[in-house]
Amino acid sequence: MMTYIGHHIIAELKFTDGNSIKRVGQLKQIFEDAVKKSRLTKLSSDYHQFKPFGVTGYILLAESHVSFHTWPENNYMSIDVFSCGSKEQAEIVFNYLLEKLKPITVNKKDFSRGI
Amino acid sequence: MMTYIGHHIIAELKFTDGNSIKRVGQLKQIFEDAVKKSRLTKLSSDYHQFKPFGVTGYILLAESHVSFHTWPENNYMSIDVFSCGSKEQAEIVFNYLLEKLKPITVNKKDFSRGI
Repeated sequence: MMTYIGHHIIAELKFTDGNSIKRVGQLKQIFEDAVKKSRLTKLSSDYHQFKPFGVTGYILLAESHVSFHTWPENNYMSIDVFSCGSKEQAEIVFNYLLEKLKPITVNKKDFSRGI
Repeated sequence: MMTYIGHHIIAELKFTDGNSIKRVGQLKQIFEDAVKKSRLTKLSSDYHQFKPFGVTGYILLAESHVSFHTWPENNYMSIDVFSCGSKEQAEIVFNYLLEKLKPITVNKKDFSRGI
């Protein structure tokens, strides 16, 4: 029998163009707000701006992590939300991100983590 | 057709007991060494020691990220290795971690990321 530890959302987002995912500023704000909204506990976060464009970011949580990486040249962003809080909290983070990021297509997979 | 972006290893590790996964010190060293060995490019990393025990950490890479979270009370550790470098580099990280961490069971899943 599996010991359930947490819920992990893995998502692939596609955009009409790469403009909205080129720069760290707005993306950082959206991700920080998503975690605040979920009431998950942020321990730390870090973001990196690639040249000429592209962003990667990480929020370490008491309940695991949220991460994203963008490839504007492919109109693509990866998102991971791993929460050992409730599944609902992971969904709050993810739904807020979709609402703000407005991708044209989303491929979402849900996993139970544990052993 | 999917645009392939990177390789993501998701793993669940079980240990005979939780002692080796309680404290940040040795785990930090093992994860930092794993990334060095793979020649992936570290941007930053952060680790957190929970009280009374338990550790969470991540290494942000130019090629995505490595993360882990431990639940010593369940003899359990989660590992994620997401690399848009070669699949081989992700495997080098993961195999080094297994060699050093010595879990008794490993449940590993491999995913292609992209859209």
